[in-house]
Amino acid sequence: MNDKSSQKFQAQEICSLAHRCASRGWVPATAGNFSFRESVEADADGGIFVSASGLDKGAMTPDDLLEIALANNAPGYRVVLAADGLRPSAETSLHAVIYRDRPEARAIAHVHSIWNTLLSQRHVQRWPGLGTVVLANYELLKALDGIATHEYSEQIPILENSQDYSGLAEKLTHVLAQFPTTHGVLLHGHGLYTWGKSIAEVWRHIEALEFLFQVEARRQMAGW
Amino acid sequence: MNDKSSQKFQAQEICSLAHRCASRGWVPATAGNFSFRESVEADADGGIFVSASGLDKGAMTPDDLLEIALANNAPGYRVVLAADGLRPSAETSLHAVIYRDRPEARAIAHVHSIWNTLLSQRHVQRWPGLGTVVLANYELLKALDGIATHEYSEQIPILENSQDYSGLAEKLTHVLAQFPTTHGVLLHGHGLYTWGKSIAEVWRHIEALEFLFQVEARRQMAGW
Amino acid sequence: MNDKSSQKFQAQEICSLAHRCASRGWVPATAGNFSFRESVEADADGGIFVSASGLDKGAMTPDDLLEIALANNAPGYRVVLAADGLRPSAETSLHAVIYRDRPEARAIAHVHSIWNTLLSQRHVQRWPGLGTVVLANYELLKALDGIATHEYSEQIPILENSQDYSGLAEKLTHVLAQFPTTHGVLLHGHGLYTWGKSIAEVWRHIEALEFLFQVEARRQMAGW
Amino acid sequence: MNDKSSQKFQAQEICSLAHRCASRGWVPATAGNFSFRESVEADADGGIFVSASGLDKGAMTPDDLLEIALANNAPGYRVVLAADGLRPSAETSLHAVIYRDRPEARAIAHVHSIWNTLLSQRHVQRWPGLGTVVLANYELLKALDGIATHEYSEQIPILENSQDYSGLAEKLTHVLAQFPTTHGVLLHGHGLYTWGKSIAEVWRHIEALEFLFQVEARRQMAGW
Repeated sequence: MNDKSSQKFQAQEICSLAHRCASRGWVPATAGNFSFRESVEADADGGIFVSASGLDKGAMTPDDLLEIALANNAPGYRVVLAADGLRPSAETSLHAVIYRDRPEARAIAHVHSIWNTLLSQRHVQRWPGLGTVVLANYELLKALDGIATHEYSEQIPILENSQDYSGLAEKLTHVLAQFPTTHGVLLHGHGLYTWGKSIAEVWRHIEALEFLFQVEARRQMAGW
Repeated sequence: MNDKSSQKFQAQEICSLAHRCASRGWVPATAGNFSFRESVEADADGGIFVSASGLDKGAMTPDDLLEIALANNAPGYRVVLAADGLRPSAETSLHAVIYRDRPEARAIAHVHSIWNTLLSQRHVQRWPGLGTVVLANYELLKALDGIATHEYSEQIPILENSQDYSGLAEKLTHVLAQFPTTHGVLLHGHGLYTWGKSIAEVWRHIEALEFLFQVEARRQMAGW
Repeated sequence: MNDKSSQKFQAQEICSLAHRCASRGWVPATAGNFSFRESVEADADGGIFVSASGLDKGAMTPDDLLEIALANNAPGYRVVLAADGLRPSAETSLHAVIYRDRPEARAIAHVHSIWNTLLSQRHVQRWPGLGTVVLANYELLKALDGIATHEYSEQIPILENSQDYSGLAEKLTHVLAQFPTTHGVLLHGHGLYTWGKSIAEVWRHIEALEFLFQVEARRQMAGW
Repeated sequence: MNDKSSQKFQAQEICSLAHRCASRGWVPATAGNFSFRESVEADADGGIFVSASGLDKGAMTPDDLLEIALANNAPGYRVVLAADGLRPSAETSLHAVIYRDRPEARAIAHVHSIWNTLLSQRHVQRWPGLGTVVLANYELLKALDGIATHEYSEQIPILENSQDYSGLAEKLTHVLAQFPTTHGVLLHGHGLYTWGKSIAEVWRHIEALEFLFQVEARRQMAGW
């Protein structure tokens, strides 16, 4: 359970994921956060590693990760280990909700792109109450875990943004139940949460969803 | 025929091509695939090397290539050699069709860009049944094999996307016959196939066509 | 006060900031300039280091910095030390105004992006006399010093461009007084000035503001 | 006159310029070409070095340069020295015209960008006979040699594209006379020619003009 070498490897891998996102401009100005779960059984005792608050993600190192445990009464969590000076991000509670309600998830990323910001704002403004971005008939949908055909319609729910993170955790709980097959959740004006069964799968989901968000936003902007 | 050093060199060259495409964002999330034909005579016995399924193309190495032979009754093909764990991509049959019907082709690339996705969708939606993207009066058309003037109109056919790859191989056979001078084929919502007499020529074709797709899409979006 | 090692470190850090801006295309063709203030008390005797005129900012080194002191009767300044051949940029007087009127500022950057150019032109043309860009309801506003919620409206004033830099310094004095909470000032067709309590904070402000300028310009262009 | 070390240095510098342009996507698919003039007096005997035909400019080396001399009856030129297998580009005659009619020019670049292609096409289509792109009131105009204020209007003439390069050389001769203060010439659907008193100045001109072309095209597309 406490395999240090595997933990070190995954810590390095999650930093590398953060650097790739930074190089694409998806985590500007200390935005975004990243985590991995060392093993599925580890939750109650720890074994979940989350990036600390306020980092430049393009320079993130394994020392910038906090270890947390899921609380019995989630969405709470407990900090197990943190180097001096590291504060947990306010969004750690959203990671905790996803690990609780998507038990297969081994890693989570939150990214903040030009195109996901534009799309989440547009959809909320134009179709209030609808609150989803729909991605359909793209071959790249097959990059999403479990999808084997382009003849598929991915519905990404959009949550209203809030600085009340326990309220946000509750709303996230609801949409994860309401959209059991979604591969991501958007926060309005505040980026994408996506997860996967491995860190590599999270990267695949980010790249696929951000590609499709850009295509979709450009298509709608052009009236095509 | 079985010049190992040349084969190694070309394997390295096709990986380098894949990396360049990845750095441009043209093979996101394991999309895209690449192949080369060691020599023109080699087909029946093997000598065609195709990227395996599911790879991150930005990290592709020569070990990620499968060797195939064209079947007598194409579009079929036969796997000659594959390292443990490598599965042929479903799109290998499209590579086989192109090698059969474009005997001069020594390499093929399939890339998946924002702009070719937008254009293929737009053209199918707006002019159903037309199914081509027309590129005309651009100097960069001279980068396409055999074209010596900008006063030329390249017609790139668009195939409807499908997960039935043997049906798709058949349709590809038809459009390659119907458009004997085209330098590429688009799949609707699913990217570009292009080929060349060398790996360097494939890169030239990709760069020229993707440049022109972007110009053409932006031009049409602006109503210019 | 005259800690050479700290000064060297900050000189390297401001060059690194310039290089990052260059790699994003934000200081094209010798545009832009950068400075830091070694310590807050140092102003009258020197201790402010400003990039010289006419440099390619992607190749800036610590030797390309001039040391200046704030004049008693600002917006003036006095060159304390400059290597042979270095001329102060005409915009040095704008840096002097900001250090005088934002005493907490330890570093300043002036960047020149596609999107800030488009936005400043548009706002001046469409709403003459208004002269601000408003950024509201974006999570990324929290990257700006002192902002703790997305429910905030940042007003960035726009100054008319001029080659009369003492006149421009006077106008800058006025808008800094008129907009006491702004994190930046735009010059019409001439880029952004932003500052921070550290060089790292300036980078965070640049990345956040340029991200939001791009979102805002694309949103307005689309009529969203 | 025949200072080999200076010649080697400049050959390296022009290759570095080509690589920077390639990294921006401005010389796709072997498009574009580059040259420098070793010294102003050298023309009749040689001393002008031009990139050969058909190169990937991202991989250009000093060995890919041909040495030419201006002919007495320009626009002609004479190849002085060329390594085996190097052919002069058809556009070498346009370089010869510029060196003849802009005697201060020490280097020339021809680049092929998305935005200069879009703008040249738009202007020819919308205002036939006008044939210029006008860039006015941008601070970045000051990056152009001799311009000291943003209150300036740069007129870049547009030549109709042609594969008849001697006819094109003649037309280029006319526009260089007709627009004595322009810093560049556009070919319709075929990119920008710009020049400078040094290789560094050419880079500054390219970066400034391409920045302004993009701003201008986006502005016009938005109807701003």
